[in-house]
Amino acid sequence: MERKIRMGMIGGGEGSFIGPVHRIAAFLDGQIELVCGCFSSSFENTKTTARALFIPENRAYRTFTEMIEKEALLPEGERMDFVAIVTPNDLHFEPAMLALNNGFHVVLDKPMTFTLEEAYQLRDKVKETGLLFALTHTYTGYPMIKESRHRVRRGDLGKIRRIYVEYPQGWLSNDIAGENKQAAWRVDPRRAGKGGCMGDIGVHAYNLAEYISGLEVDELCAELNSFVPNRILDDDGVVMIRYKGGAKGMLAASQIAIGEENDLTIRIYGEKGGLSWRQEEPNTIILKWADKPNEIIRTGSGYMSSLSQHNTRVPGGHPEGYIEAFANIYRNFALALDCILKGNEPKPEYLDFPTVKDGVRGMQFIETVVASSESEDKWIKMIE
Amino acid sequence: MERKIRMGMIGGGEGSFIGPVHRIAAFLDGQIELVCGCFSSSFENTKTTARALFIPENRAYRTFTEMIEKEALLPEGERMDFVAIVTPNDLHFEPAMLALNNGFHVVLDKPMTFTLEEAYQLRDKVKETGLLFALTHTYTGYPMIKESRHRVRRGDLGKIRRIYVEYPQGWLSNDIAGENKQAAWRVDPRRAGKGGCMGDIGVHAYNLAEYISGLEVDELCAELNSFVPNRILDDDGVVMIRYKGGAKGMLAASQIAIGEENDLTIRIYGEKGGLSWRQEEPNTIILKWADKPNEIIRTGSGYMSSLSQHNTRVPGGHPEGYIEAFANIYRNFALALDCILKGNEPKPEYLDFPTVKDGVRGMQFIETVVASSESEDKWIKMIE
Amino acid sequence: MERKIRMGMIGGGEGSFIGPVHRIAAFLDGQIELVCGCFSSSFENTKTTARALFIPENRAYRTFTEMIEKEALLPEGERMDFVAIVTPNDLHFEPAMLALNNGFHVVLDKPMTFTLEEAYQLRDKVKETGLLFALTHTYTGYPMIKESRHRVRRGDLGKIRRIYVEYPQGWLSNDIAGENKQAAWRVDPRRAGKGGCMGDIGVHAYNLAEYISGLEVDELCAELNSFVPNRILDDDGVVMIRYKGGAKGMLAASQIAIGEENDLTIRIYGEKGGLSWRQEEPNTIILKWADKPNEIIRTGSGYMSSLSQHNTRVPGGHPEGYIEAFANIYRNFALALDCILKGNEPKPEYLDFPTVKDGVRGMQFIETVVASSESEDKWIKMIE
Amino acid sequence: MERKIRMGMIGGGEGSFIGPVHRIAAFLDGQIELVCGCFSSSFENTKTTARALFIPENRAYRTFTEMIEKEALLPEGERMDFVAIVTPNDLHFEPAMLALNNGFHVVLDKPMTFTLEEAYQLRDKVKETGLLFALTHTYTGYPMIKESRHRVRRGDLGKIRRIYVEYPQGWLSNDIAGENKQAAWRVDPRRAGKGGCMGDIGVHAYNLAEYISGLEVDELCAELNSFVPNRILDDDGVVMIRYKGGAKGMLAASQIAIGEENDLTIRIYGEKGGLSWRQEEPNTIILKWADKPNEIIRTGSGYMSSLSQHNTRVPGGHPEGYIEAFANIYRNFALALDCILKGNEPKPEYLDFPTVKDGVRGMQFIETVVASSESEDKWIKMIE
Repeated sequence: MERKIRMGMIGGGEGSFIGPVHRIAAFLDGQIELVCGCFSSSFENTKTTARALFIPENRAYRTFTEMIEKEALLPEGERMDFVAIVTPNDLHFEPAMLALNNGFHVVLDKPMTFTLEEAYQLRDKVKETGLLFALTHTYTGYPMIKESRHRVRRGDLGKIRRIYVEYPQGWLSNDIAGENKQAAWRVDPRRAGKGGCMGDIGVHAYNLAEYISGLEVDELCAELNSFVPNRILDDDGVVMIRYKGGAKGMLAASQIAIGEENDLTIRIYGEKGGLSWRQEEPNTIILKWADKPNEIIRTGSGYMSSLSQHNTRVPGGHPEGYIEAFANIYRNFALALDCILKGNEPKPEYLDFPTVKDGVRGMQFIETVVASSESEDKWIKMIE
Repeated sequence: MERKIRMGMIGGGEGSFIGPVHRIAAFLDGQIELVCGCFSSSFENTKTTARALFIPENRAYRTFTEMIEKEALLPEGERMDFVAIVTPNDLHFEPAMLALNNGFHVVLDKPMTFTLEEAYQLRDKVKETGLLFALTHTYTGYPMIKESRHRVRRGDLGKIRRIYVEYPQGWLSNDIAGENKQAAWRVDPRRAGKGGCMGDIGVHAYNLAEYISGLEVDELCAELNSFVPNRILDDDGVVMIRYKGGAKGMLAASQIAIGEENDLTIRIYGEKGGLSWRQEEPNTIILKWADKPNEIIRTGSGYMSSLSQHNTRVPGGHPEGYIEAFANIYRNFALALDCILKGNEPKPEYLDFPTVKDGVRGMQFIETVVASSESEDKWIKMIE
Repeated sequence: MERKIRMGMIGGGEGSFIGPVHRIAAFLDGQIELVCGCFSSSFENTKTTARALFIPENRAYRTFTEMIEKEALLPEGERMDFVAIVTPNDLHFEPAMLALNNGFHVVLDKPMTFTLEEAYQLRDKVKETGLLFALTHTYTGYPMIKESRHRVRRGDLGKIRRIYVEYPQGWLSNDIAGENKQAAWRVDPRRAGKGGCMGDIGVHAYNLAEYISGLEVDELCAELNSFVPNRILDDDGVVMIRYKGGAKGMLAASQIAIGEENDLTIRIYGEKGGLSWRQEEPNTIILKWADKPNEIIRTGSGYMSSLSQHNTRVPGGHPEGYIEAFANIYRNFALALDCILKGNEPKPEYLDFPTVKDGVRGMQFIETVVASSESEDKWIKMIE
Repeated sequence: MERKIRMGMIGGGEGSFIGPVHRIAAFLDGQIELVCGCFSSSFENTKTTARALFIPENRAYRTFTEMIEKEALLPEGERMDFVAIVTPNDLHFEPAMLALNNGFHVVLDKPMTFTLEEAYQLRDKVKETGLLFALTHTYTGYPMIKESRHRVRRGDLGKIRRIYVEYPQGWLSNDIAGENKQAAWRVDPRRAGKGGCMGDIGVHAYNLAEYISGLEVDELCAELNSFVPNRILDDDGVVMIRYKGGAKGMLAASQIAIGEENDLTIRIYGEKGGLSWRQEEPNTIILKWADKPNEIIRTGSGYMSSLSQHNTRVPGGHPEGYIEAFANIYRNFALALDCILKGNEPKPEYLDFPTVKDGVRGMQFIETVVASSESEDKWIKMIE
């Protein structure tokens, strides 16, 4: 790179959880600078946030529309290269479309849109514009998830038979919408969309299984629950999955699994071997075998694949965490964007981040799961 | 006790897996002696086994019918008090009925019978005879499972919302029926009954969840799979469960989870707290809380309940294993039987072992799961 | 075997911790029967204990002298074959010598004697009589310790460089001698001998390291501490060890490591590989390698050595615990004794239990450690 | 902050391990910008590195002397605020002194200097100039180490009795100095100083124990080893420690613990409770108690102290790793420096990073350990 990639941000003002995480992730490798932002619907909040982030006053914008339109008028060499959109789900589509329409590349939080219809439009727009688009399914950024994908796709486990993917959290065990800004919008169908727990975290689990295995859901059977009184959206659910090709999946997600933090876990079993991974101790995979000892493979080891090594920053035994996984999405996005800005073809490993396709599939999954939960039919075809 | 309790055994000859385990479990506390047996359909095997077990030649019987009938004629003070039946599933019902009809108490391996109809007959016979009957759902014998039951039933976790119970094994990942006697009958519907994996281990998982929680299955939605070519019975499956009262369950069992040994695991979440336990490290429970640190509770600690202490033999930090859990069933059975033989009422903690009721419920579960798997209806009522 | 091996017991009356454990361990495999005992200095206690153990009144003895002498007069086919001595340390030597002098084989708890001088006498007596003698260093009975020994001795790890062996307990963090019978004698130099923590558990750690590695201590540098006010014997200590041949060891034992149960742990590193094991989860060893993934080896796996398999009772994933490890000593002792009684040579795997040599070495270790702790010299030669 | 803090860097060119880590750590929170550097003794390397880091050509310096002197002449608002020195140990003292003499604040890697004498001079110079000085003992930056310190200092564990701190690595099990730049200087006494393993990692372990407990070493007894043929410096060692006030410590460090990555571990036991922490899974502490269950406390939980919260970036269950721990040193340093640049008093939590005092004590520890290892005296007073 000859210069840093310039980022603008929509959302992520004071009180945001995910906004600061996006920024840390973007800053980590020193390749991205934040040049402008519209951090909040409150302009006061935006201005305060901008000041804390060393952004000049004239690039703290009152609305995202103003930001995108004004940035588009700035000369190259000054205007932002891409925009990171980190707002609640109901505010993903509009700024993303506007950004693309104005020639800006986009990083967007998941789930991609509020409705599936929006997802399709966004997909078409990305295709039409040819701009770079990343969706922050953070967990696919872990080095060991890269390694898992590499090994499963290479056939180490044989034909996959059975996947268990689970995502238990406990923080919504009680009704905390009144006191917790993060909880408030996630349990509100007007802001979160059709999926509560499934839209917030179930979709991560779905994406993780697909990312590693390459398997696509054929049909599914779901039950969603709302355990906390007066909660409208689901806060818990189980999905039985039939993948194309014959593998079977079980996806469980819950936000009322009291005492659990963020215990995303995946286990995959094939004809020749298996593997397991836990997000809360993300630098370890257990490889499982029929006739020899199970093996512990670890981030940063010499025997890691080049894909995994490319996404690793420190030697083995120096634990890499959630922020580094998140930063891998930004880093690869920036590396790919740098190639594009120079007119070069990005290397394949640079393009290894979730895209608008993952976003569409995630929305299809959420819609199918909600439909299944409401249906008396046992098996529902995945919407495609 | 003034004398040892006298046991006869049907099944468990050379080449048996579970027979020797039953014997070790029975011998451990020095309260039970093995006095006779019909260990195999091969009389040679029976005689060899009897010799190795210091059983006099005249009490090694050619058939279980001969054994039960001849023992019944022996004088009290010599004849066996109870019979342990450790044969494949298709050979449970007949000897058990005969034993009860001849006045012998019974310990029987699970699943209780070959068909549900037999289970009902056995239940009625036990009721009619008033004899003591234990079913060896081993895993309920662990001290920490006793403790879990105690704490859940006391309300420590609040109203239960969500149960995940899983039982992955990998030993049937390949077709080993030709070379492995244990595998051979388990995958053969003429010997195992309707359930393969579900009948062999899924029923343990079902029983464990019910034992701890006290919740009864209302309806369920199951998918069973047979992954290994030419296998007739299921070797894998997932069951979504609706318990009476509103709690939800997910039960996953598999014998093709390659590289897994015997990883029975349960996690229960209520309104106030949660807990988790793993059979492979059975002396630890994690208690989970919303607003304070999760706690590690351990077998043999001073703060254990009296029920758990009663089922513990050594101080904390001296791990108790599978054999001790198994022995707790025999020990409590023997203590209860001793009371009965003396005309006394057994203490409640002596009667804390699985009974014919658990056996009936287990068979109902297997039948319902198999029916659900074959049905297009999403939810099937638990057969009762 | 054509008959059960007959055991007498000295010590292990009501209130004993280790007596019942010895009995369970002896009964587990159904090869040993308890025929007589002198369980306590209180004859009342002895009689009560005998009754509970189904021992006829005339074989509950008032003193161990009476027991040994009277048993010696009984006809073969009736008298005990061996005696298990499970008294506090000051009561090991006398009954053991008497038993040997009267032709009885002996199982003795550790540490072997009260003084090193007694240990030498006992060693000479065992040699002179040619009788079988086992010392219950329980932890060497675990299948995974057998496996570790096998692999280390075979050279899998290369030349051993570094051993860490640790044994933290917390139960003596406070002065509980007044209320706890087990604590009372262990902290009393008149009953325990020179070593407190080192005599009680440090010697286990020492023995474990030697059993696995085959390395002998050349010299050592120790510091022992007594943290609890008014405690005379050590309740904590660290020993730096120089093994013959150049390997280095660090042994830490503590009974004031508050909150720890019985966390005996060993890690061994050679030129080619390493391994680690924890007593509290005893069915797992981690094998460690420079250039390939660390491996998890587990009790009961198909790839275990025959020595390990011989000491395993149930398939992988069915955890074996402390009692089974203890029982392996009794089982091998009984198998060896059976050969001897028949005039046969015991198989090598039958003789794989700790002997009087281990007892002498343990006493030498305790004496050397205590001497080092009191010395201003940095390195003290191991007494030999 | 109104502007970013400006950093220059000495060392950290291509091929460096720790240089890039320093930069990532500095960039993470978006508060520090890298404005100049002398990254290597090779000017080519420096220029390449500078380009990759977006540093203008005129601020890529040929020597550190040139850099410091030229930067000092730049106007405020342009020149660097502080310099990060990330060279091998023999190149710490000179640039640090020069930087301080020219009015630049300093971040320096550990161990602080090549000799103890240099450490004293540096300490005096820091005092004399009043400039801010941080030493990157990374491991004290973990949120859970902050929490441990908070709880131990508050007295939760009671008076401390026993500390075990261990730091096993395996990467120097073989002679890799020829092929590995990191290994080459660490095993060379002309570049590393007196301590090999003890200077590289033992000093981290020492610092960690002191940081948490507040206890100071009174005297110690050490044995250092060099296992790999022809290696001059130690690659392994054990230190028995007597802390002032009566607590006892055991410190083990090794770089030949084959198969270990970076397994820094600490366990502390007091009169009332204990705790344990492992660097490889750094978001968990186990609190240990005598009469109640051990507790699992986790990064980001609501019950964490404000000191720990200040050093935490994401909610519980989103693992924070080595880079975040490292970044906490830079972040606090930058926050403190910002206060100083504005003439304000830094908040106490900003000043919670290792300083020149830790550096002096670390050098004293290394010198004392090496002296003890060479001495026949059992106990050596800590040099002070």
